[in-house]
Amino acid sequence: MNSKDRIGIFLESQDWKSHRTSFDQLASALEGKGHSVDTVIERLKKLNIAIPSWALGRGGTRFGRFSMGGEPRSLTEKLDDIGVLHQLTGIAGSVSLHIPWDIPSDYTAIAEVAQKHHLFFDAVNSNTFQDQENDQHSYLFGSLASLGESARQQAVAHNKAVIEIGKKLGSKALTVWLADGSNFPGQSDFVGQFSALENSLEDIYGILPDDWKMLIEYKPYEPNFYHTVIQDWGSSFMLAHQLGDKAKTLVDLGHHLPNSNIEQIVAILMHKGKLGGFHFNDSKYGDDDLTVGSIKPYTLFLIFCELVKGETRGAITPDYMIDASHNVKDPLVDLLQSLENIVIAYAKALLVPFDRLFELQKKGAVEECQEVLQDAFLTDVRPLVQEARRQNNCAHNPVEAYRQLNIRKHLISIRGTKTISTGL
Amino acid sequence: MNSKDRIGIFLESQDWKSHRTSFDQLASALEGKGHSVDTVIERLKKLNIAIPSWALGRGGTRFGRFSMGGEPRSLTEKLDDIGVLHQLTGIAGSVSLHIPWDIPSDYTAIAEVAQKHHLFFDAVNSNTFQDQENDQHSYLFGSLASLGESARQQAVAHNKAVIEIGKKLGSKALTVWLADGSNFPGQSDFVGQFSALENSLEDIYGILPDDWKMLIEYKPYEPNFYHTVIQDWGSSFMLAHQLGDKAKTLVDLGHHLPNSNIEQIVAILMHKGKLGGFHFNDSKYGDDDLTVGSIKPYTLFLIFCELVKGETRGAITPDYMIDASHNVKDPLVDLLQSLENIVIAYAKALLVPFDRLFELQKKGAVEECQEVLQDAFLTDVRPLVQEARRQNNCAHNPVEAYRQLNIRKHLISIRGTKTISTGL
Amino acid sequence: MNSKDRIGIFLESQDWKSHRTSFDQLASALEGKGHSVDTVIERLKKLNIAIPSWALGRGGTRFGRFSMGGEPRSLTEKLDDIGVLHQLTGIAGSVSLHIPWDIPSDYTAIAEVAQKHHLFFDAVNSNTFQDQENDQHSYLFGSLASLGESARQQAVAHNKAVIEIGKKLGSKALTVWLADGSNFPGQSDFVGQFSALENSLEDIYGILPDDWKMLIEYKPYEPNFYHTVIQDWGSSFMLAHQLGDKAKTLVDLGHHLPNSNIEQIVAILMHKGKLGGFHFNDSKYGDDDLTVGSIKPYTLFLIFCELVKGETRGAITPDYMIDASHNVKDPLVDLLQSLENIVIAYAKALLVPFDRLFELQKKGAVEECQEVLQDAFLTDVRPLVQEARRQNNCAHNPVEAYRQLNIRKHLISIRGTKTISTGL
Amino acid sequence: MNSKDRIGIFLESQDWKSHRTSFDQLASALEGKGHSVDTVIERLKKLNIAIPSWALGRGGTRFGRFSMGGEPRSLTEKLDDIGVLHQLTGIAGSVSLHIPWDIPSDYTAIAEVAQKHHLFFDAVNSNTFQDQENDQHSYLFGSLASLGESARQQAVAHNKAVIEIGKKLGSKALTVWLADGSNFPGQSDFVGQFSALENSLEDIYGILPDDWKMLIEYKPYEPNFYHTVIQDWGSSFMLAHQLGDKAKTLVDLGHHLPNSNIEQIVAILMHKGKLGGFHFNDSKYGDDDLTVGSIKPYTLFLIFCELVKGETRGAITPDYMIDASHNVKDPLVDLLQSLENIVIAYAKALLVPFDRLFELQKKGAVEECQEVLQDAFLTDVRPLVQEARRQNNCAHNPVEAYRQLNIRKHLISIRGTKTISTGL
Repeated sequence: MNSKDRIGIFLESQDWKSHRTSFDQLASALEGKGHSVDTVIERLKKLNIAIPSWALGRGGTRFGRFSMGGEPRSLTEKLDDIGVLHQLTGIAGSVSLHIPWDIPSDYTAIAEVAQKHHLFFDAVNSNTFQDQENDQHSYLFGSLASLGESARQQAVAHNKAVIEIGKKLGSKALTVWLADGSNFPGQSDFVGQFSALENSLEDIYGILPDDWKMLIEYKPYEPNFYHTVIQDWGSSFMLAHQLGDKAKTLVDLGHHLPNSNIEQIVAILMHKGKLGGFHFNDSKYGDDDLTVGSIKPYTLFLIFCELVKGETRGAITPDYMIDASHNVKDPLVDLLQSLENIVIAYAKALLVPFDRLFELQKKGAVEECQEVLQDAFLTDVRPLVQEARRQNNCAHNPVEAYRQLNIRKHLISIRGTKTISTGL
Repeated sequence: MNSKDRIGIFLESQDWKSHRTSFDQLASALEGKGHSVDTVIERLKKLNIAIPSWALGRGGTRFGRFSMGGEPRSLTEKLDDIGVLHQLTGIAGSVSLHIPWDIPSDYTAIAEVAQKHHLFFDAVNSNTFQDQENDQHSYLFGSLASLGESARQQAVAHNKAVIEIGKKLGSKALTVWLADGSNFPGQSDFVGQFSALENSLEDIYGILPDDWKMLIEYKPYEPNFYHTVIQDWGSSFMLAHQLGDKAKTLVDLGHHLPNSNIEQIVAILMHKGKLGGFHFNDSKYGDDDLTVGSIKPYTLFLIFCELVKGETRGAITPDYMIDASHNVKDPLVDLLQSLENIVIAYAKALLVPFDRLFELQKKGAVEECQEVLQDAFLTDVRPLVQEARRQNNCAHNPVEAYRQLNIRKHLISIRGTKTISTGL
Repeated sequence: MNSKDRIGIFLESQDWKSHRTSFDQLASALEGKGHSVDTVIERLKKLNIAIPSWALGRGGTRFGRFSMGGEPRSLTEKLDDIGVLHQLTGIAGSVSLHIPWDIPSDYTAIAEVAQKHHLFFDAVNSNTFQDQENDQHSYLFGSLASLGESARQQAVAHNKAVIEIGKKLGSKALTVWLADGSNFPGQSDFVGQFSALENSLEDIYGILPDDWKMLIEYKPYEPNFYHTVIQDWGSSFMLAHQLGDKAKTLVDLGHHLPNSNIEQIVAILMHKGKLGGFHFNDSKYGDDDLTVGSIKPYTLFLIFCELVKGETRGAITPDYMIDASHNVKDPLVDLLQSLENIVIAYAKALLVPFDRLFELQKKGAVEECQEVLQDAFLTDVRPLVQEARRQNNCAHNPVEAYRQLNIRKHLISIRGTKTISTGL
Repeated sequence: MNSKDRIGIFLESQDWKSHRTSFDQLASALEGKGHSVDTVIERLKKLNIAIPSWALGRGGTRFGRFSMGGEPRSLTEKLDDIGVLHQLTGIAGSVSLHIPWDIPSDYTAIAEVAQKHHLFFDAVNSNTFQDQENDQHSYLFGSLASLGESARQQAVAHNKAVIEIGKKLGSKALTVWLADGSNFPGQSDFVGQFSALENSLEDIYGILPDDWKMLIEYKPYEPNFYHTVIQDWGSSFMLAHQLGDKAKTLVDLGHHLPNSNIEQIVAILMHKGKLGGFHFNDSKYGDDDLTVGSIKPYTLFLIFCELVKGETRGAITPDYMIDASHNVKDPLVDLLQSLENIVIAYAKALLVPFDRLFELQKKGAVEECQEVLQDAFLTDVRPLVQEARRQNNCAHNPVEAYRQLNIRKHLISIRGTKTISTGL
């Protein structure tokens, strides 16, 4: 019996009785306040978060990495792992591939594995922050923004190749994250690099299929520690605006300077039709890549408020992905916790009466505005989230199910204790 | 004998002998390295920094203000003070007025005072962050970005009135700094406020004379502590881009989140033809409004490197102004120190061989790039700066001259010890 | 009929029926998980938060202040306002006076007013950050840490006088917050100022009654923007340790550098018996003085987890106070919201099974540790908080009660629209 | 002919003529201002900065590492590289070993190599942030501060072993840097870990020889991203104070939260006799480990001002070390640039007339205080630094000498292009 069947049997055998009680109590309270609980649940059921192919093994820092057993040894095994997440939660229905770490050797076979797990292929990610064995030119001093023409051309060609791979898989987006920048004042020329990048992106954009998006990620520092070519949303927006409609900004929650107001960035980007993608994680200091919602759950909620409002106002919904590094946790549990915290934040945001809030805002009723928002945040929405999973035939409590099913032990028995998945 | 004459006599009596020695030594060393010292000095002589009319008295914090004597009691006296600065340094040849604090009652008279001091009228500044006695509507919940239509209209009208005042004075720019934002999540609507602002700015832009600039300032927080409508350069750029060629971004050095790379922002804005103005000050934490160059002189130098490079590449030179708050210093000495640190940073930047640097950057010669930059920074350029002042008939050492001339004592004797100049 | 009676009648007439339903549901769920709900409620009922006498009027920033009507005009009226807060919430039973803003003219009369409202006098606060009319020496360059001996002596004498005032009122603590520091590198001598401070504090400590605490506050910047003499908890701890058992550290939530882990500071100070007092507020950037829990409610919860754990381990409970500035809200509503968020965070912390958590921590069960903590945080504890108020004969929903009672309108009718309370 | 001789011949053949001119001009100017140039040079000649054994190869980030050729393959080759640095600069006369990366196999042989290069053995560094092959227990959840007793005991034993190794080499200090902490709220117990650490350090301190120091390093985050056990100087000071006189705090310039005033920390630690060691580097964001003086040279100068003042006041001089990561530079050139920027900052600090400054500080002459400090900083002290090297028989310009001697090429010819030195 394979893992998928084992889980299926477990899920079918779940007892939803106590859930029913708490859900009914909450639903009745919410209906009393004027909410349509069914509408909320329908939206929760449709949520989809991509899982990156590089997040299924233990991550590390520059000081080292403590590996754990059972990490996937191949792209197929990565899809299997995501399949488990999706089966338990119902909201992890796609995979985002990293090239060249995950180039399929057999596209048909991979497509079948994906289909078996009900997964589709989300954005494909290029990698020009590391040198690959067969690369002729080094990215030590930059890639798409390099002042050196040969490295730049190589990076452009790589991105075009990634698009071709994505086309074969049914992906509809290319995510461009660049490490390009400099470590020291004077090391490089801000404008020279930016101009080089403009040329490179235009070139790549030229071959982007009409139904694709180009997602331009920004980040203020690391691995370069003086400047990064696309340092903030303003730079990304400027580039996306110049390129055209298919180019959008991608927001990664950990890619901001201290004290940034990320929810405002999200709101303005949606206002301008330029929010294309989202990398979820959490952080206290920098790009810490911690479990979503583990550090600043209120900020996560505020971001979802903007996402919900933006949608209501007609903005396109960005592609969602988790981008975390599981340095001390079981990667699959970490991802389940991230998925849970995302859906909880989303559910709370769906309980905010934005029309009423806007009336209060116009009146300058500051105190009531805060109350309205915090009322939603303080509500314990877990029964809603569980009800959505019940209706989707998923787990009441995915993490608990994972434990009861002994999944890690199972994976180790198959894959061994010494496997190291590709990734950071 | 008036102050101007007293200073004139002092300046004429200066002994430049020891200056000559150190200048000759430096000039010879620099010429040996291939620099054209004359060219550098010509550029230093042409530098101009506006002085804001609100910076001539002691500033304060929300915890209080320690006033000092001799502060200017009228716009005329403010111009007199700036006249002193200009006579001593040769680079403080303009004034930036704040409306409504400094509305001239007699335009002809004020023009004459300005002319006497060889001053012109730089950007005019509107004020919609405080309620004025005769205002019908409060700016408590915003002005140009207010969700309340009446406050917004009042703010638009005020800005238009400021333009009219500026036209009578010969100003060529309107600086818009907004306190608009919110203190609490939920208090306001990011997009609602931003849209309101877009409408307001378009309206004002519509009456802006063709030879004027609209300078749009950004600031991440204070006096609002959750969000600011124009939070960063990206927002300002977006607005300026939408409005048209006359709209530009204004950079204030203190208006950034921790660890921001300001020189990169400057470079990219110049690259896009959108750097319109500059407010100089220094800070360690936030908008501390400290003396220019007192905290991070290397950053100041790096910024001037970008300004010099940008000019070379054909970008327009932004309007320069000092925007500091003199909480514990004599305001005039503080301004003299700021002027000195600006011209020193500028002189050092003029010594960087940018063409050679660019060649090194393209080669990835990281170590040499740093050496080239630091060589200029480590050079003691004070003799160059003094030579520029000598040729401009100004003071060898402006601060020392100010002390020897007993200017503060003189001002107190005329104006008294209890005067409080308008400002923060 | 006075305000107290009006409120009393309102409170007695409250209908607790729907509360009973939600409380029973929650209590039953919690008891099912092994919690003793009664114990939790007993602890909530005993919570006490001091209200500072300077927080009852609108606050402002250096850019201005928008006043509102009905602000208290005297110390008696300040106590009246706190009385309202206490009557509604049951947890605002003390006042912290600021000297010299609130020196009682008639101690007996003031004591009676306090008694009427069931208030006691918490820590007294000295003020050496502003010059007072009759001061001989200015605090422009420092007070207790001044290099100038006369200003330093004046500040010592002031603090001693504050203790004497506190003794007459029954206070048991002196809070020392210093603005001392410098704005510029070189302006002052770190060690010289620190030594001066050590001498000053020893001097004051010498006359501190045996049953008093000296609470030493720290703050990294503002109103000085280069350095502050007591910059962080380490400096405060060092001083408190040197002085002796009566000296403790006071933590203000807004007085930290970006990204500080405040809950860790709290834990370690309790571990060392040195956490003496707490100033609650919230902030996104610096000392923003926003409503408690409005920005980072999870951090507030984590802090209360440490406070609860510390108490369990036998540490003394610090004195709690709210220290916020109500720039755009009705001050009394702002305080009610702060009180509510504090008690909610406290209730959630009381639901954490710390013994079980510690076992998980020792096992390295990282994922479960997070679950245990977040389970408590996600719980909607409002029915617990309301039950504690019910048992204390207070308001079901204090803010709503305040509105239904039209208290602000009532205050304006008595005090007028133009009053400005002393404070910042 | 070996490398040492090649360099010796080069150094002897240097032409100091043009140096003599610029030195004489500077010396005469400085003597005119009252400085004793000889005294300054004597102090510069005696400066010593340790080089860590792990800093001689390319460093990397978690995103990868771009290796370069000629990296040392053994401890002997590491000492050879440091020998080159010392021969060129005269101030790199010691090595700081990292255990277990650099355990000597033959102590006598290593001692001879060191002696040949005139190097002594500085602080030894333990490593409990990575698991070693033969470790029985993992440091995944901590080492000296682990809640797990077996990992803790292993870490204690390791540190004791490191002391034994150090004793054989003539080291006089143990540096303890811990990665211990946690990634998530709830993962660990602040007090539990701190208490464990207190026990561990006491245990190690117990066997520390009387003439040794224990240097306790602090760091706010990385590789743990929620909390670090020794998060700041306050924690380190507390531990060092508890342990006794031999325990001191070690300051690493990159281990602070944004906007920290590091020079103040240095001053206060010296004031209390607790500054034991110093790790130099530079950073813009976090622990960026960039070349010393490349980002914030003014801060470096201000730190040296405190070090010079502290010495004058009788504080012990801390051990100096460079701790940088050379991700895009030749490691040896990077170290030479760091050494140069350190000695330049030191020379400038030696030009500050601290007695006169203290008089101005006491008078509140803020403007003049700044002038005095900036006058020293603006002085081009390179001729002083070069004169000290001339007198020490070292290179006029070490980086240029390194290039003219083709040292990297030489190293590659011996060691090959594929070597990877141990380190991060």
